[in-house]
Amino acid sequence: MRTVEKGSFTLPGEAGYEKLTLEMAERWGADVIRDSDGTVLSEEITKAGYGIYSTICIIRDHNQWAKNNQDKLQQCFLMTPPAVAERERLEISLLDGYFEEQFRVNDSADAMKYWQVYDRTTDTLLERSAWSYDRESRSVALEGVVPWHSYTVSFLAYRIWEEISMYNHTTNKWDKEHLMQIDPVYPQTRQYMLDWMEEWCENHSDTTVVRFTSMFYNFVWIWGSDPRNRQLYSDWASYDFTVSPRMLDGFEKAMGYALTAEDFINQGKLHVTHMPCDRKKLDWIAYVNRFVVDFGKELVDVVHKHGKKAYVFYDDSWVGTEPYLPTFREFGFDGLIKCVFSGYEARLCSGVDVETHELRLHPYLFPVGLGGAATFTQGGDPTLDAKKYWNSVRRALLRCPIDRIGLGGYLHLVEDFPDFVEYIAGIADEFRELKQLHRAGGPYVCGPRVAVLHFWGSMRPWSLSGHFHETCMHDLIHINEALSGLPLEVRFISFEDIKNGALADADVVINAGAAGSAWSGGDAWRDGEVIARLTKWVWEGGTFIGVGEPSAAPGYDSYFRMAHVLGVDEDRVDRVCHGRWTFAVDQRAAEQVMPPGAYIPARHSCHLTDGRAAVLAADGDNPLLTGNAFGRGRGVYLSAFELTNANTRLLLNLILSGDGGAASGLYLTDNPETECAYYPESRTLVVINNADTPQECGVQTGQGTRRVRLEAYGTWIREI
Amino acid sequence: MRTVEKGSFTLPGEAGYEKLTLEMAERWGADVIRDSDGTVLSEEITKAGYGIYSTICIIRDHNQWAKNNQDKLQQCFLMTPPAVAERERLEISLLDGYFEEQFRVNDSADAMKYWQVYDRTTDTLLERSAWSYDRESRSVALEGVVPWHSYTVSFLAYRIWEEISMYNHTTNKWDKEHLMQIDPVYPQTRQYMLDWMEEWCENHSDTTVVRFTSMFYNFVWIWGSDPRNRQLYSDWASYDFTVSPRMLDGFEKAMGYALTAEDFINQGKLHVTHMPCDRKKLDWIAYVNRFVVDFGKELVDVVHKHGKKAYVFYDDSWVGTEPYLPTFREFGFDGLIKCVFSGYEARLCSGVDVETHELRLHPYLFPVGLGGAATFTQGGDPTLDAKKYWNSVRRALLRCPIDRIGLGGYLHLVEDFPDFVEYIAGIADEFRELKQLHRAGGPYVCGPRVAVLHFWGSMRPWSLSGHFHETCMHDLIHINEALSGLPLEVRFISFEDIKNGALADADVVINAGAAGSAWSGGDAWRDGEVIARLTKWVWEGGTFIGVGEPSAAPGYDSYFRMAHVLGVDEDRVDRVCHGRWTFAVDQRAAEQVMPPGAYIPARHSCHLTDGRAAVLAADGDNPLLTGNAFGRGRGVYLSAFELTNANTRLLLNLILSGDGGAASGLYLTDNPETECAYYPESRTLVVINNADTPQECGVQTGQGTRRVRLEAYGTWIREI
Repeated sequence: MRTVEKGSFTLPGEAGYEKLTLEMAERWGADVIRDSDGTVLSEEITKAGYGIYSTICIIRDHNQWAKNNQDKLQQCFLMTPPAVAERERLEISLLDGYFEEQFRVNDSADAMKYWQVYDRTTDTLLERSAWSYDRESRSVALEGVVPWHSYTVSFLAYRIWEEISMYNHTTNKWDKEHLMQIDPVYPQTRQYMLDWMEEWCENHSDTTVVRFTSMFYNFVWIWGSDPRNRQLYSDWASYDFTVSPRMLDGFEKAMGYALTAEDFINQGKLHVTHMPCDRKKLDWIAYVNRFVVDFGKELVDVVHKHGKKAYVFYDDSWVGTEPYLPTFREFGFDGLIKCVFSGYEARLCSGVDVETHELRLHPYLFPVGLGGAATFTQGGDPTLDAKKYWNSVRRALLRCPIDRIGLGGYLHLVEDFPDFVEYIAGIADEFRELKQLHRAGGPYVCGPRVAVLHFWGSMRPWSLSGHFHETCMHDLIHINEALSGLPLEVRFISFEDIKNGALADADVVINAGAAGSAWSGGDAWRDGEVIARLTKWVWEGGTFIGVGEPSAAPGYDSYFRMAHVLGVDEDRVDRVCHGRWTFAVDQRAAEQVMPPGAYIPARHSCHLTDGRAAVLAADGDNPLLTGNAFGRGRGVYLSAFELTNANTRLLLNLILSGDGGAASGLYLTDNPETECAYYPESRTLVVINNADTPQECGVQTGQGTRRVRLEAYGTWIREI
Repeated sequence: MRTVEKGSFTLPGEAGYEKLTLEMAERWGADVIRDSDGTVLSEEITKAGYGIYSTICIIRDHNQWAKNNQDKLQQCFLMTPPAVAERERLEISLLDGYFEEQFRVNDSADAMKYWQVYDRTTDTLLERSAWSYDRESRSVALEGVVPWHSYTVSFLAYRIWEEISMYNHTTNKWDKEHLMQIDPVYPQTRQYMLDWMEEWCENHSDTTVVRFTSMFYNFVWIWGSDPRNRQLYSDWASYDFTVSPRMLDGFEKAMGYALTAEDFINQGKLHVTHMPCDRKKLDWIAYVNRFVVDFGKELVDVVHKHGKKAYVFYDDSWVGTEPYLPTFREFGFDGLIKCVFSGYEARLCSGVDVETHELRLHPYLFPVGLGGAATFTQGGDPTLDAKKYWNSVRRALLRCPIDRIGLGGYLHLVEDFPDFVEYIAGIADEFRELKQLHRAGGPYVCGPRVAVLHFWGSMRPWSLSGHFHETCMHDLIHINEALSGLPLEVRFISFEDIKNGALADADVVINAGAAGSAWSGGDAWRDGEVIARLTKWVWEGGTFIGVGEPSAAPGYDSYFRMAHVLGVDEDRVDRVCHGRWTFAVDQRAAEQVMPPGAYIPARHSCHLTDGRAAVLAADGDNPLLTGNAFGRGRGVYLSAFELTNANTRLLLNLILSGDGGAASGLYLTDNPETECAYYPESRTLVVINNADTPQECGVQTGQGTRRVRLEAYGTWIREI
């Protein structure tokens, strides 16, 4: 490995461990020291000549003010579970089933005007006169209802326990004060926050970077009263926690029309980010985003005024701060820090239009990790954890430039794990070397330009709405993660983008998701123009890769609206009397694209539409992987996609096999457990082993084949 | 076994084997001799003092007349496969992909007025002026279409090869003349048929019963040109083969509105019997049925005039002759003969309002059986086949009275199978004994009255649309077959019936099917009244058993509209962020209803709605069998149901466990491989072994427990 400068590393410091802090800063080549949730930095650290990051959560650490302003806490809509009427009178207790420590009914007049009672059997709204509210029992009484129909009440509730605090408390059985979250939608809150920020900056002269976590509104996390179903609803990107009578009133004034409780409640389903939304929801997102950006900028301005930089840690209270919305630049953030478990999160971070891109690596320096598994404690193996996480992130770092990495947590925990200290030192050097390669010039990219097509398009690239393990039931996150380390140009486009000509810049379009979901597209596939443009583009040479229920929309002659391109459609009960084309699996073609160990799970039952598609994998008479020539292009169908090294290579092969130019196989390893990147400007080849066992591979370079041996998870970097 | 009179048996006779015919008639106790497709009876047989059945297929055996009246052959609508337009002009060849020996385009003016061209990308009808037809090439040219949209042509075609003839020809590689089917919708055809019938009766003075197969219109069987997908569409009960310009014109005149090609084509899906249909289709069914009954009655009148009886063999050309339509009685048929593979077909036959109910048992006396398996030939074991078929049918015969049984085919084939002759003699005696028991008084029935709820209700009881193996992908046929031999009162009701008070006569309602199908109910579940009535009925003590996707309808707060009763709902992508109730399987409750070997396939992924339902079987966190108390009644959910002896007992247990009175367990065997029936009037107990191995069981009777040993497939009959 060549010598590179130190730096680009953020170390979590810890008061009481000053010597360790400075030693580790030296060991890992840190140029910045940060505090963490639960740690503070002493003067010995802050005056040691390092950059200093200080973490703030602007909506949470103000309990005294919150107690005095309980009408300015954050809110949300809740719906009571459907209750069956046994007679013409029905009483519904509002908070039954909800975690009472999280919610308090907002029964003020300005809130109650948004309450709604629905007959869910007919899905009709009841007149306001049909129900009355009893403040004492916090219940709604319905009169004159239809017996044996089901009814729900939608109401506004204050959230009286900030969710991250609630989760940490409950998980760790803490006995501290419950933190509350205040809502900047009120001018008094905003004034309070601005004053607080001003004072904070004055009192933290050593701080060089204020790290916001993130802005104001948390992802949606609604808890239930029963431990058997504690987390009633968890959506890592939804806007349901941005609601308040004031925000709703403001929306009506600004947009000229009002939203109702039902626009958020949506029959109790709420608006899952994994689903497409309607125009109203898009308007709400835009309205809230405008608000978050405007007031966020005011806070950032305070920070800048004090000569500090402002970074956003994109997590938790991240709603309204989407870094790919065009408004993001207006915040004035100087950097974005992303905690990463996966490669796609590194790509997400890298692509944001901001000066500094930083990754917070895992494991976090905590005794236990996700799901309570031992990390820095008896029985833990933080070095192995670090290797696995680095293994996921590293392949994306070959593809995209990142400016900084760092860790978080209690530094003193590393004392008992010298091999961890050693491993992180190696990672830090490896990262700095990769960063230098990117600076000299980007890596070699294979021919086909890939566009991932879904409802959210470029607003939500790479991530579906949270970390991999939170969204792993969707094919697309597996695909995004696979793509994050492949030598390809990747974009994310929406159906609107297609209508605006986006296909001109794409050679491969991937559409992957469950029918009706945002990832498949839902009603977007009812638009004939989208279909015609895609059809023409494939006919002229494009490759359309559909996974799961691509282009699915009910009510047409085919369920997959791109069935004419795919040559495959899903079995539906209304076609149960139709004959099925028999087929033989084309083993030769299969061997060309499926490396050993690659597989396609049988997630859907399909049939060939006209018998022409080549079947490359099948489960009995159910085709799982097909290729269909269409004009000069083709359609490829996969029943499902699961992330493994072999399947990642399968995906690459499917993408490349549509493109004659890539057949040269330059700068691809011949072992799917390994990958490589070539940086022409530096004439440097990087080969990585993604497996937990030693591997060997060959790489075809401009100067012949290079053979490389790698240890488990190993990295090999050479000028060639 | 007690002595019973001989008779009630129909023997297939065969000219050239007169001695064998009369011997077998004696041996099997036949009182009737019949001809079969391919055999004739000689005078030696017809004058021997037996009743004589003669088979006729009124639409098929008139090729000379058909050749002279090719404009009076039967027809249907066909749709060309969707074709993608590459430019503004598109030419579509009409019969491409269809089996040209089956179809001939009807391009007469009265037919062409029904043709339609559709843009399937937008699902819009093209103006007539946008396309032209070229008679020479039998193709349609479209001008000014939207490039890259898909287009289809719907047109009328004559069917020039009667489908049963076509199937037999093709399967057996016959080289005979193709038979054509003539359409009685034309007055000339009707006159020809009446004359022919008259003459036929005059020439067949020995015939005592004319066996019609069945009337005029065959089930839908559309063949393709490619052997890889020969049977493009097979629906055993659909009305698509009843279409002709004349029938359509008549419909418009009678109903005051016209149907279009699209009303039949339905985007190329046609109207599968397994789906609900709209009002127009119901009108069409009623109109065609009226026609079939009216003209059918004229033919039956001719038969009666000659002192003969008229039986309908309910098969093949059975469309319009549904025996549970209220009009059926008007035909004047004296008997209904049903070929049976399964118990439910015996129940179907037994329930028809006609004088004589006869079953045509399997195996058919043919060298090969279904799917080409050896029967009466080297390698065949017709006795084992007969045992298995009898085993399926027998349990239904314990429950319902049937008047006659019989066989069909080439009698000489039995000569080499003396054990078959012996076995049939036993079956014939067993049947006659059961018939005698029924005549004395019906069997003991357990308490709960079962109503199977689906779209077609009492119009299509027991059968979905054909034999078991043709419809075995639907849960309901497995359930119907299980029910056919259970000691329960069973009815089939529609959603309209519920609104007319049918629940008053039901203790258990079963709703089983795929979402949107006729068996689940589809849009019928959008009717609040249906839901309210069912909800009230369960609350007051009813048991609602849902299987698969019961009560499913999209667009409401729950996908299963009876989720409040079932306590279970299906996982949908729009609820992917919702929490799941954890549960433990209630092993004790499971053991009470699930006999050893019973199982529930995991066909759907579900969750508990409010955590209250008891889970009796699960696949990980997916509940497969649940019970949910609701008021005084309950909801039971099964992910799927597959017919086995153990699962049949599971179903019985689920039905009985909602009814306190049945807990006595009177006249139930304690071994699920066996079943029994008790005839109080005859004080006779019948115990049967449904397994292919010897079994023992105990039966709790009014006189204590009776223990019985049975050989494989054995029957035990005793007065107790």
